[in-house]
Amino acid sequence: MASLATCALTGGAAASGAKCTISKLVFGPGLMPSRLAVSWDQELNHRGGKLQCSAVDVKGPSSFISGKKFQLDDVLEAQQFDRDNLNAIFEVAREMERVEKKSPESQILKGYLMATLFYEPSTRTRLSFESAMKRLGGEVLTTENAREFSSAAKGETLEDTIRTVEGYSDIIVMRHFESGAAKRAALTAGIPVINAGDGPGQHPTQALLDMYTIQREIGRLDGINVGLVGDLANGRTVRSLAYLLARYKDVKIYFVSPDVVKMKDDIKDYLTSTGVEWKESTNLVEVASKCDVVYQTRIQRERFGERLDLYEAARGKYIVDKNILQAMQKHAVVLHPLPRLDEITVEVDDDPRAAYFRQAKNGLYIRMALLKLLLLGW
Amino acid sequence: MASLATCALTGGAAASGAKCTISKLVFGPGLMPSRLAVSWDQELNHRGGKLQCSAVDVKGPSSFISGKKFQLDDVLEAQQFDRDNLNAIFEVAREMERVEKKSPESQILKGYLMATLFYEPSTRTRLSFESAMKRLGGEVLTTENAREFSSAAKGETLEDTIRTVEGYSDIIVMRHFESGAAKRAALTAGIPVINAGDGPGQHPTQALLDMYTIQREIGRLDGINVGLVGDLANGRTVRSLAYLLARYKDVKIYFVSPDVVKMKDDIKDYLTSTGVEWKESTNLVEVASKCDVVYQTRIQRERFGERLDLYEAARGKYIVDKNILQAMQKHAVVLHPLPRLDEITVEVDDDPRAAYFRQAKNGLYIRMALLKLLLLGW
Amino acid sequence: MASLATCALTGGAAASGAKCTISKLVFGPGLMPSRLAVSWDQELNHRGGKLQCSAVDVKGPSSFISGKKFQLDDVLEAQQFDRDNLNAIFEVAREMERVEKKSPESQILKGYLMATLFYEPSTRTRLSFESAMKRLGGEVLTTENAREFSSAAKGETLEDTIRTVEGYSDIIVMRHFESGAAKRAALTAGIPVINAGDGPGQHPTQALLDMYTIQREIGRLDGINVGLVGDLANGRTVRSLAYLLARYKDVKIYFVSPDVVKMKDDIKDYLTSTGVEWKESTNLVEVASKCDVVYQTRIQRERFGERLDLYEAARGKYIVDKNILQAMQKHAVVLHPLPRLDEITVEVDDDPRAAYFRQAKNGLYIRMALLKLLLLGW
Repeated sequence: MASLATCALTGGAAASGAKCTISKLVFGPGLMPSRLAVSWDQELNHRGGKLQCSAVDVKGPSSFISGKKFQLDDVLEAQQFDRDNLNAIFEVAREMERVEKKSPESQILKGYLMATLFYEPSTRTRLSFESAMKRLGGEVLTTENAREFSSAAKGETLEDTIRTVEGYSDIIVMRHFESGAAKRAALTAGIPVINAGDGPGQHPTQALLDMYTIQREIGRLDGINVGLVGDLANGRTVRSLAYLLARYKDVKIYFVSPDVVKMKDDIKDYLTSTGVEWKESTNLVEVASKCDVVYQTRIQRERFGERLDLYEAARGKYIVDKNILQAMQKHAVVLHPLPRLDEITVEVDDDPRAAYFRQAKNGLYIRMALLKLLLLGW
Repeated sequence: MASLATCALTGGAAASGAKCTISKLVFGPGLMPSRLAVSWDQELNHRGGKLQCSAVDVKGPSSFISGKKFQLDDVLEAQQFDRDNLNAIFEVAREMERVEKKSPESQILKGYLMATLFYEPSTRTRLSFESAMKRLGGEVLTTENAREFSSAAKGETLEDTIRTVEGYSDIIVMRHFESGAAKRAALTAGIPVINAGDGPGQHPTQALLDMYTIQREIGRLDGINVGLVGDLANGRTVRSLAYLLARYKDVKIYFVSPDVVKMKDDIKDYLTSTGVEWKESTNLVEVASKCDVVYQTRIQRERFGERLDLYEAARGKYIVDKNILQAMQKHAVVLHPLPRLDEITVEVDDDPRAAYFRQAKNGLYIRMALLKLLLLGW
Repeated sequence: MASLATCALTGGAAASGAKCTISKLVFGPGLMPSRLAVSWDQELNHRGGKLQCSAVDVKGPSSFISGKKFQLDDVLEAQQFDRDNLNAIFEVAREMERVEKKSPESQILKGYLMATLFYEPSTRTRLSFESAMKRLGGEVLTTENAREFSSAAKGETLEDTIRTVEGYSDIIVMRHFESGAAKRAALTAGIPVINAGDGPGQHPTQALLDMYTIQREIGRLDGINVGLVGDLANGRTVRSLAYLLARYKDVKIYFVSPDVVKMKDDIKDYLTSTGVEWKESTNLVEVASKCDVVYQTRIQRERFGERLDLYEAARGKYIVDKNILQAMQKHAVVLHPLPRLDEITVEVDDDPRAAYFRQAKNGLYIRMALLKLLLLGW
């Protein structure tokens, strides 16, 4: 990326005549460079600490416009991806499905170390990332008790932790309980950061694997009808998915949810503003008959506090069972981010249209693709 | 295994003319096929989910009879192994003792991923399995908080968890708090499952390493005298060991235990029915003088609840110390599944006949052998 | 090492004519051999357990005297290292900085297994060791809940745990809550042990990385002025550092700390006895202006119990901020063992003299060097 920008050195570093190489260039909205990471020639680097540097001349973002492959620096939120990025990532994920044991492709990340920095346990997500890294020959440093790093007693900041961990690894996969934590980590880190969920914020790799699964199962992303079912108010999954669906043409979305957990207005407004047709419905059978994708989600008990009566009413309302299967078209599929309780009955599992375990497996391929892109590039 | 059975396809899959390959065929008691796992040709597989398939024609179990090597699919319980299986596994374990660092043999599982899915911590067992996998070049995904997968709050079934984890790994080693959990996992999984202990149920790899140690230390398994000492009521270890000892000829077993934790009738009846001579005794010195193997176990305090007086009485009753050593024959050995408290005194450790740490080490070789057999075959 | 000592066999082993090879020879103070580990020829080893063996003839410690490289067996305490050892280790650490991904050097520990046996969590230290091992191609067995091994309920001794774990791995990195635990482990283990902190005792790899950082940043270790700031009473870090600084010539140490956490007399006496000039001061600005190294530490709240007023008074007293930076010489550096709270203000981070994150990174190189030396030798 060095050819794309030059750097104004400030302070004593400039006077020293040191040369720098741009190793990381992050673009904000509108493809304006919003962040630079630079590496200095050795002697300065040794004493350099963290010098201030800002881009003063970016030679046209021409190779970054829609339709071209972009440089992937971090994976922080679903909104970061447009349809060209998405298609490019999905192509790489497809290649990942074909990686065979003991093949040269299964060793492309040999020598690379991924740190899984989990401030709250999420075994499923962690294992998926660690499997992805190891399937490509990489190695893993694991911590599921990252809170210990920054315990109240010790009080270290997230930024300090990141500065230490980036010394030990080549990429950080972080799960955190606070919204925005992944962005803070990425701003500090000189190595790539993947957001594996930050509180009520984002879980972008889940959204990517959802879209990838739809493409693999239905064969296209334009012109599809999607039913989003269940807890639409609290599920970051369906919210991120809505953002990504809006990147495609002629998408129609049906919201089916108990009143207490309806989709919020911000997403509805966003869909409207981007020309996505959407509709609320209380008739799951009818919606199922029209949709290519029925995306069921779990009603999260922990959102209801003391009101267990409301929870019980909500969770029993829209169940995907044999009746729903019967209404669905032959080519349609049922998705679910897992874990599921009884919002999809076990009898559904044996139907070829039950795609949720294939969806979980696709998470592996998407994460393999992202690790490859972040560490080696396209 | 495809040549051993054909498959009746049911439902739409049959009509489509799809071909299937049998990848897993599990035999129940009497060598009747009890379970099939099949893989479908690619297109169908993609949409196939889990199709129903049952064996309709098994071409004679001739290559599965005693004396031939069998296909190892899962390791679930001690009863699964007969003396020919055992001897064959012990041969492979012996080869594993000779695997050297950086040799080609030390890389035979390169590219394979083992998931250690531990619903309760058992660091010793986990490290032994993980060491075994890594000594053969394989990689490991670790979780010691697998309960988080299926927490009360989230409520995922074991079956759903297994379906997810099998997408990330090539073999599952599972420790669970519920008897029978390993079998449930194996019924769901399309990849091999090893039971690393399921509650009061089974811990078959411990039983295998015990038998292997006896063979290595004494030089034979037929015609041996074994003293089982300590908690015989609650220890799944001695119960499993009794099952395996019954596979050999002229074995004589002595039970030496406090009254409150005596060996239960089911095992005694089983031994009698298989022609194994057994006897109860309260004289450890006398038993020690007759035995090739003195198998000591820990009195488990947690089994006594509030009755600490009973616990204290029981734990002090039969101690292996210098006096017992003096009574033992020169070629005999002391075994213990570890951890030990004071039921073997530390002074015994320096005697060559104290074989319990060599026994622990043998666990590594047995687990290497099982991983090799399950992933690569004979 | 076999040529350096012969062995008197006692007991039955001697009579059998067995041969032994000395695999481990530990020298106590004054270079007297204090411990031997031997391996026996195979047949005896198989039955040998732990035979008693003591050195009766050591052929001159000539190659162990100052100025020669020594055989590194365990890393247990800072006092174990003299300036020649230190310099030799630092040379290897410097080579480690130059190890490149996918180079042959990055694979020198392939086939080796490190067990990180942590009886209390210390994610930072653990990740640093595990990164070091993996950067050299080695593999890791991790446990952060090693207490489970020896839980009150089960009651296994540390010695028994070590005997088991040494069967699974090639080197043990241990963190323990009890002072002296690392030495006990090393006395039992037939494989190398690294002390990764044992309670209030030692944390020798921290002291080594501190010294290495000073050499890298300042260019020398003789003739330096060092300000030790903060909690000097409880911090094992500064105590160990004082021991190592005393190995060098013309070192001058300034102690700057709140009264309640002043450096204890044992260290002061030791410095005096070894000719190191030291002084206590309450003027951090003045000390900063004279020093090559300002070594700041965290005031540990947990040391103050209920006396939060004392804690608050102590922690605010000596802060490294812009004012201190201004007083410091251009070539001087600020160090800190991390984590830091507000005893170094964030504004300091951007100054090239803020060396604490480079210091953390140096921990990686020191640990790579130690693992290489312990497993492969010089």
